[in-house]
Amino acid sequence: MTAQDKNAIAQAEQAERVAKSHGHLVIIGGGEDKQNDMAILKRFVELCGGPDAKIVVITAASSVAQNMWETYDRAFADLGVSRHSHLHLQSRHDANDERHIRDVVDADGIFMTGGDQKRLLAIIGGTALDAEMHAALKLRGACIGGTSAGASAMSGHMLAQGRAELHPEKGSVSLGAGLGFLHKVVIDQHFSERQRLSRLLSIVAQNPYLQGIGIDEDTALVVERGVGIEVVGQGAVTVVDGRTMSTNVAEIANHETPELIDVRLHLLPAGSQYALPGTDDDARRVPPPLLEFLENITKRNPIS
Amino acid sequence: MTAQDKNAIAQAEQAERVAKSHGHLVIIGGGEDKQNDMAILKRFVELCGGPDAKIVVITAASSVAQNMWETYDRAFADLGVSRHSHLHLQSRHDANDERHIRDVVDADGIFMTGGDQKRLLAIIGGTALDAEMHAALKLRGACIGGTSAGASAMSGHMLAQGRAELHPEKGSVSLGAGLGFLHKVVIDQHFSERQRLSRLLSIVAQNPYLQGIGIDEDTALVVERGVGIEVVGQGAVTVVDGRTMSTNVAEIANHETPELIDVRLHLLPAGSQYALPGTDDDARRVPPPLLEFLENITKRNPIS
Repeated sequence: MTAQDKNAIAQAEQAERVAKSHGHLVIIGGGEDKQNDMAILKRFVELCGGPDAKIVVITAASSVAQNMWETYDRAFADLGVSRHSHLHLQSRHDANDERHIRDVVDADGIFMTGGDQKRLLAIIGGTALDAEMHAALKLRGACIGGTSAGASAMSGHMLAQGRAELHPEKGSVSLGAGLGFLHKVVIDQHFSERQRLSRLLSIVAQNPYLQGIGIDEDTALVVERGVGIEVVGQGAVTVVDGRTMSTNVAEIANHETPELIDVRLHLLPAGSQYALPGTDDDARRVPPPLLEFLENITKRNPIS
Repeated sequence: MTAQDKNAIAQAEQAERVAKSHGHLVIIGGGEDKQNDMAILKRFVELCGGPDAKIVVITAASSVAQNMWETYDRAFADLGVSRHSHLHLQSRHDANDERHIRDVVDADGIFMTGGDQKRLLAIIGGTALDAEMHAALKLRGACIGGTSAGASAMSGHMLAQGRAELHPEKGSVSLGAGLGFLHKVVIDQHFSERQRLSRLLSIVAQNPYLQGIGIDEDTALVVERGVGIEVVGQGAVTVVDGRTMSTNVAEIANHETPELIDVRLHLLPAGSQYALPGTDDDARRVPPPLLEFLENITKRNPIS
């Protein structure tokens, strides 16, 4: 067997593993309960495989990484997890360091804390660790969690920064390159609490290719690849779909408010569950206007 | 000619006048500028016919009617209006009093101030004055303005009260009977400033028959009956259309957040102008998803 043959076989095997592997994303809008019933963190631990799971906490988004770790150390300990550890990354060098990669290679769950998503991406974007996280999700069916900045970082196009103005405003929000666990979406967090609908509409107005996902505090959008989604916690997930929209955004000046006609809005309160057609019972039947969104975010994207 | 014939002729003549008369509604989201360029009040005066117009100010929504009047007295005087007067109504008796009705019979403009729309309706709803206001608009083409409570009062189904929660909530908003210058809509004001989208969605979720209109502060939706609309001022008008929506609102308990799928949202910033097809130039062409809304709110409703 030639090296080329071996390579082709390895690629085929990997494609098959991607196609079979589920893997979950737990995308949290920040402010999740860490002291009381911890519904969201509990769900994350379950999806990692329960208290015996190996969970790695990435605090790179935060400038107070040690404090962040102590908070989650306590929360996961309170949930009975014993094999959780702090992956303390201060530089891209750290995120390419073999010792740190080894921590992720056999992790059942990887959790990204809040902070600043730009900082997180500056440290881990495009590193060996980033690649290993994709392998963990896509080949091994691991669970990737992220809250606040750690949630925004999950999409390919990432909300980098932007004020939450009273009205949508052209040029008020900038996007960056995120980790790409999801595509054709952009994720905002602390959504209802910080009144960020106009910020999400600002993005969708200029980027109708992207569907906007706004996640409330203490609320998680849980994505099971190839299967479906559910909303866990206290609030709701808002989806803003501008694909059928018409707008004058191309003609107006920066900082002006665009005309937006026919934006579609979906509100998915906690408890909502939707499964891809053919995979589940009636209780999780997806309403037709949500189908394309569901298909997109549950898609088993290949390892890139 | 019999009395019956005369009556039939009078009715036919009235129907013709309704069909021909335009008449404007100036629906203001509260907080309109009353001291500087006063763009909205200036537009109201123009639509009344200019500085020589006879303008009547109804302060019945307010519990501090005299203060209210003084504010508008000054503003209209500053705009060069000389024939403006205070229609001070303290009871339904006042609103049926012939002396007060005479004030309205030849008014070119009628302006309703802010306060509490329930108070306004309790005093004037269903009175001779109410009927005379409809005649002014529909038979004589007068201009009816209203700000804040005076704006909410204009629709047939009136937002009576309700908290602006973080999320839409079943049973959190109550409707009442408004003046009915517009139908199949419900109007909210101080819209972006007081973060009232979820309140409007609460209404639409339970009353998909109604389209929600949210008007920002210092912003007016100007309706020219039979012709079109424009948005004047600083902010925007948000339209929420739940007619194609699917929701579980009928199945959930009070105070729960409903699932809402496929609500249509339109954002019309100040400067937007739309005319009914065939009545105007390309600049005011109405986008197809807005056509039905436009046809409804510009409809020349009969005198009831």
